[in-house]
Amino acid sequence: MLLIRLNEKSSTPKCKQIIGQFRHKIENQTLLPGEKLPSTRQLADKLGLHRSTVALAYQELWALGFVDLAAGSCPRVRDRRQIVTAANRADEGMIDWKSAASKASHEIWQSYLSFSQATTPKGNSSIDLRSLTVDRRLIPSEQFRSCLNHVMKKQGVTLLNYGDHAGFRPLREHLARHLQHHGISITADELLITTGSQQAIDLVFRMIAAPGRAIVIESPTYSHMLPLLRFHGLQPLEVPVRSDGMDLSILEKKIQKSHPSLIYTMPNFQNPTGASTSQAHREQLLSIGERHRIPILEDGFEEEMKYFGKVVLPIKSMDKHHLVIYCGTYSKVLFGGIRIGWIAAERECIERLTAIRRFSQISSSMILQAAMHRFCQNGYYDRHISKMHRLFRKRMQTALGALRQHIPHEWAEWTEPSGGYLIWLRLKPLPGPSMDFKKLFASHGVVVADGSFFFYSEISEICVRLSISSLNEDEITEGIRRLSNALREAYGRRSS
Amino acid sequence: MLLIRLNEKSSTPKCKQIIGQFRHKIENQTLLPGEKLPSTRQLADKLGLHRSTVALAYQELWALGFVDLAAGSCPRVRDRRQIVTAANRADEGMIDWKSAASKASHEIWQSYLSFSQATTPKGNSSIDLRSLTVDRRLIPSEQFRSCLNHVMKKQGVTLLNYGDHAGFRPLREHLARHLQHHGISITADELLITTGSQQAIDLVFRMIAAPGRAIVIESPTYSHMLPLLRFHGLQPLEVPVRSDGMDLSILEKKIQKSHPSLIYTMPNFQNPTGASTSQAHREQLLSIGERHRIPILEDGFEEEMKYFGKVVLPIKSMDKHHLVIYCGTYSKVLFGGIRIGWIAAERECIERLTAIRRFSQISSSMILQAAMHRFCQNGYYDRHISKMHRLFRKRMQTALGALRQHIPHEWAEWTEPSGGYLIWLRLKPLPGPSMDFKKLFASHGVVVADGSFFFYSEISEICVRLSISSLNEDEITEGIRRLSNALREAYGRRSS
Repeated sequence: MLLIRLNEKSSTPKCKQIIGQFRHKIENQTLLPGEKLPSTRQLADKLGLHRSTVALAYQELWALGFVDLAAGSCPRVRDRRQIVTAANRADEGMIDWKSAASKASHEIWQSYLSFSQATTPKGNSSIDLRSLTVDRRLIPSEQFRSCLNHVMKKQGVTLLNYGDHAGFRPLREHLARHLQHHGISITADELLITTGSQQAIDLVFRMIAAPGRAIVIESPTYSHMLPLLRFHGLQPLEVPVRSDGMDLSILEKKIQKSHPSLIYTMPNFQNPTGASTSQAHREQLLSIGERHRIPILEDGFEEEMKYFGKVVLPIKSMDKHHLVIYCGTYSKVLFGGIRIGWIAAERECIERLTAIRRFSQISSSMILQAAMHRFCQNGYYDRHISKMHRLFRKRMQTALGALRQHIPHEWAEWTEPSGGYLIWLRLKPLPGPSMDFKKLFASHGVVVADGSFFFYSEISEICVRLSISSLNEDEITEGIRRLSNALREAYGRRSS
Repeated sequence: MLLIRLNEKSSTPKCKQIIGQFRHKIENQTLLPGEKLPSTRQLADKLGLHRSTVALAYQELWALGFVDLAAGSCPRVRDRRQIVTAANRADEGMIDWKSAASKASHEIWQSYLSFSQATTPKGNSSIDLRSLTVDRRLIPSEQFRSCLNHVMKKQGVTLLNYGDHAGFRPLREHLARHLQHHGISITADELLITTGSQQAIDLVFRMIAAPGRAIVIESPTYSHMLPLLRFHGLQPLEVPVRSDGMDLSILEKKIQKSHPSLIYTMPNFQNPTGASTSQAHREQLLSIGERHRIPILEDGFEEEMKYFGKVVLPIKSMDKHHLVIYCGTYSKVLFGGIRIGWIAAERECIERLTAIRRFSQISSSMILQAAMHRFCQNGYYDRHISKMHRLFRKRMQTALGALRQHIPHEWAEWTEPSGGYLIWLRLKPLPGPSMDFKKLFASHGVVVADGSFFFYSEISEICVRLSISSLNEDEITEGIRRLSNALREAYGRRSS
């Protein structure tokens, strides 16, 4: 009965002291399994505490699995010998996860490791021309916070419950109206809200993937789509991207040879080349899809970031026959961290995708979708987009100007995009032993995306993708100056 | 030049009036593709407006795809003939989505339709003993709102950016400490935050699924896992659930016959039976897994909802050899709408699952995870759980009392759970033609979950799952009274 001694001076509550002391005695086996502890009344009397304090301590010890409680009898120490602790757990597990995993999932893990390696943090003073995330300084965080707080005040309980499998309906209705700006005429039932574009692509692949199926991809293409393609066992039919998009005659040939299940394309500011296709190209691509009855997955990941030249509307705007599965996202114009994207497609297709999503995650949280809806309703979104256009029109001009000034065409060629953030540089072949460009750029304090990541097959060319999304004009100029210094070292010449 | 007439009295801004009128004229083809519009200066002079107002209107018309703009020349009407409108789009699409979809994804859509049908909204005055969502009246929405608002104020910009692929690190650290309450000793690196338990199951299936692979499932089991199992092409080895969990001798036989890749089990308050397994059962199950080196997916979806009797710690607490993939969720004790669950497993396994998640959705939003972390730090979570225990201990007693009072054992048998919300009723066989119980219950104003949904194979028994999660004591009593009335009609007898 002299088990427990309370420290009257301690700031730790009495109840916690009791728990801690019993726990310690059970863990170091001063108290053995099966041993009786004093009854609540006995211990309370002994310690001069209210019985409820002791009862609470015993409840907690019970919940932690240290004692058994039964009505009318004293608590007993539980048998915890089976419990694993940091001390007694095996270093080596018993499962060979490589064999437990499927071959496909083993490969996606390998991709994950190589991506992680490729994106190791840049040095502090490096300039990041690699990352495709929006400049943190432009994130309208306070406006979004106020929207979030508002919707939680108004309808918190509802939003904290499970919601619509296809996404928050008012946001879908808003998007249906908003997409009319891009000539896309659909209803809320033809929309599914996704966890960013990435989930949109995954869902489409999950819908169509089956052994032996092939899909058309652009070459180069979105790098994060490639591991997913392999994971799904889809055969890629690579079609080279020219300055005006996919080479359509090669596309026709590949389609005729191995009838694919999908054509994946990014008509605007293609990732990584920054190229946009013409109206004529879009019409031809659509008519190829129609002729062969192949669905087109149109990735409009930066649809809203047009700031130069002539507007060309998305392929989806011309899609009379419901062939196009169009996906979009807030990630590349606003912020990636809310993870909200969408798919617009024929209703049956949307339902099929929603079914897969329902059984793989029930639904997304309605909270952020409701806040996003309010953000748009309040006009914050439109104002943000105007600001982005104004800023990035200038930033892109700065980037292209700096390239023209500092990098002669004897070293590299590049695209001139009409929007977005991306510029694609093809470096001229270098005589002599191959050069580690990554290391070279790093030594000059600039980080770019390695072009080989955007190709399914190996390439011999050296390409790099520049992204200006997170940099201001001064940083862009300095980044390109450093790039030029690095290239000067490689090509051993002075810039003009 | 007399194209545009402004209405001085209208509350519509001048700029919007200009846009609206040009848009109308282009849409009804008063202005034809290629036609020149007045220059900014001309139109501004004519209308007596500032040039910037007209320029803004032209910008917007350009963004909407109605005009082409080029420096130094007048705007021209774009060719929009290709654009699809509600009027000219085809009723029937060109793609046969059934053929476009894989066989597996076609089946998951079929499941989706049948689930949607099975959960058609109950009548207004019906009592819902079907839904397994937490009583809305208990959702601490205001506390969560304040946490959300706090974290957005403190670190909004960071949270609005892409975050850690494995989930918000402070929340993982908190969970690692919290799981010690259940005897689970792991680090934050052995945790992956998921979009609820459902995504946890999906990710594990995505990791292991390959042609010919089989997994052990309990029979009956979690209904929403079954379509996923089929979708992944996994062969189910069904092991019947007794009052003390899976029949382990049947399990051994099935394992010996067709070496499965996974054992999926819910040791606490199994869904749908409400049964919990003993310490001895858990030890035996683990040792079977160890002997055959088969990973165990332990679904602790209601781990925190123990409120009766002796604590039995999760299998994961005894898992010295890192065999167990443990998943948990906030959905069934707190609120489902934030969609936060987790997986605890050996680090390599977590990394492999994280890889799949990265390429299928990049990451989850950090915002809700950060708010959840604060919610726990503030002690709101612990207080909520105490309240839930207090309330549901009573509610479950009420439910079991009402069953004993109103439903004689000649009609049905049921389990007595030691926590959670679920009671499983096996109805006695009825002589004569088969009865539509769903209709019968509906006519008595009570809705329950049809037991057949929880079995992979067809069953001849009639079972129903009762969930008390969304009802208070009065509602529970009344619901069971109605159930009793319905059964009295079926069995044609008076209750004792």
